[in-house]
Amino acid sequence: MARVLEQLLSPRSVAVVGASPKAGSVGGEILRNLQRCGFPGAIFPVNPKYATVDGIPCVSSVAELPDGVDLAILAINRDLVLDEVESCAKRGIRNLVIITAGFKESGNAGVERERVLRESIRRHGLNVVGPNCMGIINSSPSVHLNASFSRWFPQGGGIAFISQSGSLGETLLECFGNAGLGVSLFVNLGNRAGLSENDFLAHLASEPACSAIFLYLESFAAPAGFREHVERISKTKPVVVLKAGRTEAGAAAVASHTGSLASSDAIVEAFLNQCGALRVTTIQEALTALRAMERGVLPRGDRVAILTNAGGAGIIAADACERVGIAVPAFGERARRELALFLPAEAGLGNPIDMIATAGAADYGQGLAVGLTEADAAIVIFRPPLVLKDAPEAVADRIVEGALTAPDKPVLICTLSEQSTPAVEHLRAARLPVYAMPETAVEALAVLNRARRIRESWQAPEAPRSFDRTRARVVIERVVAEGRVGLYFEEGAEILTAYGIPVCAFRYVTSADEAVTAAKTLGYPLVAKVDSPQLFHRFEHGAVITGIAGEGELCDAVDRLKSVVRRAGFEGARILLQEMRRGRELIYGVERDPSFGPIVMFGLGGTFVEALNDVAFAVAPVSPYQAAATVHSIRSFRLLEAFRGEEAADLPALVDLLTSLSHLAIDLPDVAEIDLNPVIANARDAAAVDILIKLQPTPI
Amino acid sequence: MARVLEQLLSPRSVAVVGASPKAGSVGGEILRNLQRCGFPGAIFPVNPKYATVDGIPCVSSVAELPDGVDLAILAINRDLVLDEVESCAKRGIRNLVIITAGFKESGNAGVERERVLRESIRRHGLNVVGPNCMGIINSSPSVHLNASFSRWFPQGGGIAFISQSGSLGETLLECFGNAGLGVSLFVNLGNRAGLSENDFLAHLASEPACSAIFLYLESFAAPAGFREHVERISKTKPVVVLKAGRTEAGAAAVASHTGSLASSDAIVEAFLNQCGALRVTTIQEALTALRAMERGVLPRGDRVAILTNAGGAGIIAADACERVGIAVPAFGERARRELALFLPAEAGLGNPIDMIATAGAADYGQGLAVGLTEADAAIVIFRPPLVLKDAPEAVADRIVEGALTAPDKPVLICTLSEQSTPAVEHLRAARLPVYAMPETAVEALAVLNRARRIRESWQAPEAPRSFDRTRARVVIERVVAEGRVGLYFEEGAEILTAYGIPVCAFRYVTSADEAVTAAKTLGYPLVAKVDSPQLFHRFEHGAVITGIAGEGELCDAVDRLKSVVRRAGFEGARILLQEMRRGRELIYGVERDPSFGPIVMFGLGGTFVEALNDVAFAVAPVSPYQAAATVHSIRSFRLLEAFRGEEAADLPALVDLLTSLSHLAIDLPDVAEIDLNPVIANARDAAAVDILIKLQPTPI
Repeated sequence: MARVLEQLLSPRSVAVVGASPKAGSVGGEILRNLQRCGFPGAIFPVNPKYATVDGIPCVSSVAELPDGVDLAILAINRDLVLDEVESCAKRGIRNLVIITAGFKESGNAGVERERVLRESIRRHGLNVVGPNCMGIINSSPSVHLNASFSRWFPQGGGIAFISQSGSLGETLLECFGNAGLGVSLFVNLGNRAGLSENDFLAHLASEPACSAIFLYLESFAAPAGFREHVERISKTKPVVVLKAGRTEAGAAAVASHTGSLASSDAIVEAFLNQCGALRVTTIQEALTALRAMERGVLPRGDRVAILTNAGGAGIIAADACERVGIAVPAFGERARRELALFLPAEAGLGNPIDMIATAGAADYGQGLAVGLTEADAAIVIFRPPLVLKDAPEAVADRIVEGALTAPDKPVLICTLSEQSTPAVEHLRAARLPVYAMPETAVEALAVLNRARRIRESWQAPEAPRSFDRTRARVVIERVVAEGRVGLYFEEGAEILTAYGIPVCAFRYVTSADEAVTAAKTLGYPLVAKVDSPQLFHRFEHGAVITGIAGEGELCDAVDRLKSVVRRAGFEGARILLQEMRRGRELIYGVERDPSFGPIVMFGLGGTFVEALNDVAFAVAPVSPYQAAATVHSIRSFRLLEAFRGEEAADLPALVDLLTSLSHLAIDLPDVAEIDLNPVIANARDAAAVDILIKLQPTPI
Repeated sequence: MARVLEQLLSPRSVAVVGASPKAGSVGGEILRNLQRCGFPGAIFPVNPKYATVDGIPCVSSVAELPDGVDLAILAINRDLVLDEVESCAKRGIRNLVIITAGFKESGNAGVERERVLRESIRRHGLNVVGPNCMGIINSSPSVHLNASFSRWFPQGGGIAFISQSGSLGETLLECFGNAGLGVSLFVNLGNRAGLSENDFLAHLASEPACSAIFLYLESFAAPAGFREHVERISKTKPVVVLKAGRTEAGAAAVASHTGSLASSDAIVEAFLNQCGALRVTTIQEALTALRAMERGVLPRGDRVAILTNAGGAGIIAADACERVGIAVPAFGERARRELALFLPAEAGLGNPIDMIATAGAADYGQGLAVGLTEADAAIVIFRPPLVLKDAPEAVADRIVEGALTAPDKPVLICTLSEQSTPAVEHLRAARLPVYAMPETAVEALAVLNRARRIRESWQAPEAPRSFDRTRARVVIERVVAEGRVGLYFEEGAEILTAYGIPVCAFRYVTSADEAVTAAKTLGYPLVAKVDSPQLFHRFEHGAVITGIAGEGELCDAVDRLKSVVRRAGFEGARILLQEMRRGRELIYGVERDPSFGPIVMFGLGGTFVEALNDVAFAVAPVSPYQAAATVHSIRSFRLLEAFRGEEAADLPALVDLLTSLSHLAIDLPDVAEIDLNPVIANARDAAAVDILIKLQPTPI
C-alpha cells in the first residue's frame, strides 16, 4: 500500500478538472492554491469553456490530457463525476481527489451515486480521496502540493494530519500554523468512497519524515485494520486521535447487562487505548499534545521538577500536577543544599523551586540541572520580570542548554504570556514546547506520560494460550441442532472450561435424595437453582435458593424449586446444586458491537453494577496487559484489594478470565452474548456462578 | 468600609516614595506608569537624592509633602518602610500601597518586620495594600490610576480583579487585554498586612460600575467574612474565584474518619460553593467564564441549540455538551418544518442544525430564531467558508439581531479561528462572547449554567429551626466537670436529640434479666454493645454483638460483653441494648478545620466510606439547600434511591440531619469532633446508631 500512495501524495503532474476563472469557483481556487504553494510539476486545467485559466492553457476534457498525468482533482458538478472518473481510468490516471459533494451525505440519489462510484473505484483499482472533501496537501519541501481549497498551507514538518471533516481540518491547519507546529501532510478524507484513514496509516507507517500522526475521526472506516496499523505505528511514533460523534448504532435493545451498560463512547475509549493511540478530547488538547511531542522525548517516570520566577504560577502548576496525577516530589537535602549555593535567601528551595523575580540566566541553568537530577521532567516557568540583568534570550539559551544535557527528560516551558518574543523563538528553535499557561504545560506533560505508558505497555509479554476450540464447538453445534439459542448451565460451563475459565462446582439432581448425596461431594452451604435455557432472570422467578445449610433445608429447597418449575412450565428445566462461594461478586460479559465486533465487559457485580454502572470495556482480542488495565480502570477497584481483614481478590485470575473470554468471543462467532453474573472471586481464584450464553438466532 | 476605600482607589493626589530616575527603579517605573496612564491628579515623587524625577519636582521626605495627599506608594528599602509608614500617618496620609518586599515571606526578620507593620497599621487606622505587592490600578475613565509597576494597563470595564499574586496578576491583565475583557480595578494584595480581599469585596458590593468580580487567591484572609460578602454579592453579580495552593494545615493526625477523609481542597470546594462563588480551576477557564459573563445573561435551563455551517464542529460541540451535562434536545416536528422552509436538502434539521457551508446571513438569522425558540441558549458556529454571497460582517449582524430578540437567552459564538476579523468585532461590540473553539464555547455555557444554579439556590427558603442549645450545654458541662473528653452514648444521644437529630431506641442493662425485660420494649433483633467514653473502636474489641434474635442469644451476649469489659478493664463501662435498624449505612461527622472552623461530612458508610472515600463536606452553617447539594454530590448517590425492591432512603431526613449537625457544631465549640458511624437510613427516617463525640482537651 505504501508504494501505491506515493504517486497520489507526490505527483509530478496534476489535472484540475473543473478549474474556472470565475470568482467563487472551487476548481479555480484549487488551481490558484497549486500555483501559490510553488508546486514544481505540470498543472493542467480541464474545462471546455476556457482556452486558459489563470494564464495556464486549458484542455477541454480529460480525454485530451497528455499521457502520464499522476493525479486528477475533480471539482465539477455532481452529475458529471461518475463519467469523469471513468474517463480518468481510461486515460490511465489512477489517483483522484474528488472534491464534489452530493454523495452519500445527501439523500437517496446521493447514496446511489456513491454506490456506483465505489463500484467504479473497485473495478479500475483507483486511489480516490473523497468525494465531498477539501483535498490533500503535501508541504514537504520536495513536493509542495496544495491540491485543496484550504486557505492555509502548512509550513512542513513531522506531523501528518488526517481529517474526516474539511472545515475542521482547515481550522486545525490554521491553529497548527499559529502554534508553530510543523505539518507536512494533510488529507481530508470526506466520504471515504475509496481511501480511508487505514490506507494513509499504512503509508505513513514506513514514512521516515513522519514523526507523529494526528487523526480527526467521526467514525472508523474499518476498526480491525485501524487497530492493526496503530498497534504497529504507535511503538515508534505517537498516533493522536480526536474522535468525535457518538453512534446510535449500539443502542439497539439487548437483554443482557453487557449490552445495556455499553455506551458507544466507552467502547471507543477502550478501543483507542488498546490500539496504543493517544486519545485527546478537545481541539486544544490535540494542539497541546502535538506541540509536546515534536521533540520526541518521553519521560521515564511521573516525577516533575517545577522551576519558576513567579511564585503563584508555580503553585498553579503544582496544583495542576496533583489533579492529573503527576508527582511533584519534595527535594532531598542534597538538592536543597545545591540550590542554596546560588539562590537568594527569599527563594523557595522545595519543589516548585521558587527562584523569585531576580532569577537570571545562570540561576535557570543551575536550577534546571538540579531539577533534572531529581525528576523525570521539568516545567520551567519564566516570565521576564520588570527588572532583570540578563536579556530574556540569554535565559532562554541557558534553559535550552540545560535541556540538552538531559536529552531523555522533557523540558516544557511556560512564559505566562501569549506574546511570541525572541526568547520564545530561541526555545522553539530547540524544539522545546512553549506554553502561555502553567496548566497547559502540565497537561502537555500528562500527555507525554500517557504516551510513555502506551510504549511501556508493549513490553509486557503476551502469555501464550491454548484453548480447546473444538470442545466448545461441539457443545454449540449440539445446541444449534436442537434449535435452541439458550444454553443449560452445564453447556455454558463446558464452553468456559474449554477456554480455561473456572466454573463453580455443581451437580444436577432430580430428587431430594439425589440432592443429599450430591451435597456430600459439594459440601454445605449450598445453592439450589432451576436451570433452563428459557430462564434468564432466575431471581425474579424465585428460582434460586441460597445459603442451604443442611439436609433438611436442602430437601425443602428441592421441593420448592420443583413446584416453581411446575408453575412456570419451563420445558426441560433441571435442578442444579452449586457450592456456595464466598467473595467479591463480579460481572463479566460479551457483546457484539455493530462496528467493533466482539467486546468484553468487566465490573463489580451485585448492587454496584446496577446502581453505579461501574464497568469497563475492551474490544476483543484483549492482551493480558490490556485486561489488567481494564480491571484496574473501574472506579471501585479499591474494593478488590485487601480490605478490613478480607484478603485481596486474586487479580491475576480476574485478568486471565477477561483475556480468555475475549478469545472465546472471537473463536465462537455463533455466540451472540454472554453474561457471567456473578463471577465470585476470592484470594485463591475466580469462578463463574451463573452463566448466561445466547447464540445468534440464525447460526453462522 | 465602602466609604473608606474611596480615597485609596480614587485618589486626587499621589506620592511615590522611592521614585528614582535610575533604570530598573521600581519606584521610577510606578511614577512613569502614573504619568503614562493619564492620571489627572497631582503626583509627588519623594526622594532625598533628586530635585526632580522625570521632570516632576521631587520632595526629599514624606514630612515635606503638602497637606492633603490622598495616597502614598512606598517603593523603598525594606529597612525604611516602618519609619515611612509612621511618617505618612503623621502627615495624615491614611492610604498606602507598600510595594517593598522582605516581610513575612522572607525569614524570621521579615516576620517580625511585618508584625510591627501590622501593629502600626492598626494603631493609626491606615488603609494599606501590601507589603510585597505590585500595586493597584483603577482604569475607570474618571480616575485613570496606575499605582503599580504592571506593564499592562487595562482598558476599563465592568470587571474588578483582586489577585493575591503579583506576577500572575500581571499575566492575567495581559490575557484580559488580549481577550478584549474590560477590567477597571486591579488590586494585588501581596502580604495583606492591612487590607484583604474581604475589604475590597465590601467596597465592590455597592459599586454599581462593577458587574463581575474575579479573585485569584492562594488562601483566605478570613473565611467567615469572605463567605458573608460573597453570599451577598453573588445574588446580583458573579464572583469568580481561582483558588490555588493546598494547605498542609489540615494534615494533623486526627482519630476520626471525618478528619482523616478531609482533604483541604475538598473543603475549599465546598466552601466556595456554599458562598455562591463560581470556582474555576485554570487561568483559561477563568478567562472563558468572564467573557461569557460580560453580557450578564444567564440561561433559564440546561438546553442548548447548536447552529453550524461546519458539520464536524457541530458534532464536537454536541459531544462537549454531553460531557458537561448540557442537553442538546432533538427538535420537534414544527421546528424541523420551519428549518426546512429555508435550508437546503443537504442540511441537517436536527440539533445541531447543520446549515452547511452555503448558509448566509438570512439563514443564520432564521436558524437562530428557531433555535432560541426551542432551547434556553444557543451556540452559533460560523466560520466564513471559501465562497459565500454575504459578507461575514452581515452574518455577524444577523446573529446579533437574533440574540437581541431573545434577551434572556445567552448566545455564544464559535468562529473556528483565532483571527480577530471585522465580523468578530461586530459580535464583540454587542457583548456576545466569541470563542475560537466549540469546546470553549460549551465550557462557557456550562459556567453560565453553574452561575444560574447559584442564583437559583438563593431562592430556596431557609427553614426556621429551633434547637435546645441549653439542654446540650448541660450535658457538656457535666462531662467537663467529670474531667472527661469522651461521652457515653446516652450523653451523645441527649445532645443530638437537643438538635432534633434522631437516635435509635436504646436501653442500658446491667444483667441478663434486665436485658430480657428491656428487649420486650425494644423488640428483636437487637444489638448489644459495650459503652465506654474510652472505647472508640468497638468492633476491634469485640464489644458489639449484632443480630440477637431471642432471649437465649441475648443472655449469652450480655455475659460475653461483661467478660470483654472485665478483660479490657474499661472504667465505667456499661452495656447498651439497641434496636437493630435495617437500611443504608451512612456516616456523618463534624471536624474543626484550622482555617474554616467547623465542617460537616456526609458519606456512605460501611465498606464504601473506607474503600472508596465517597464523602462530601460542607462548612458550617449549612443551609437546607446546601445540605441537599452535599448529599447529592457523593459519587454513589444512586445507592440512596429506590433500588431492586428496596425503597429510597428518606432524603429529607438525611438533609435535615446534616443541617442540624452543622448548627450543633457552631453552637457547641467545646465539641472537637463527632462521628455518627453509622447513621442507618430507611424509607421512613434516619437515626444515629453509633455516636462518637470528643470534646476539646481544654474546654473553652
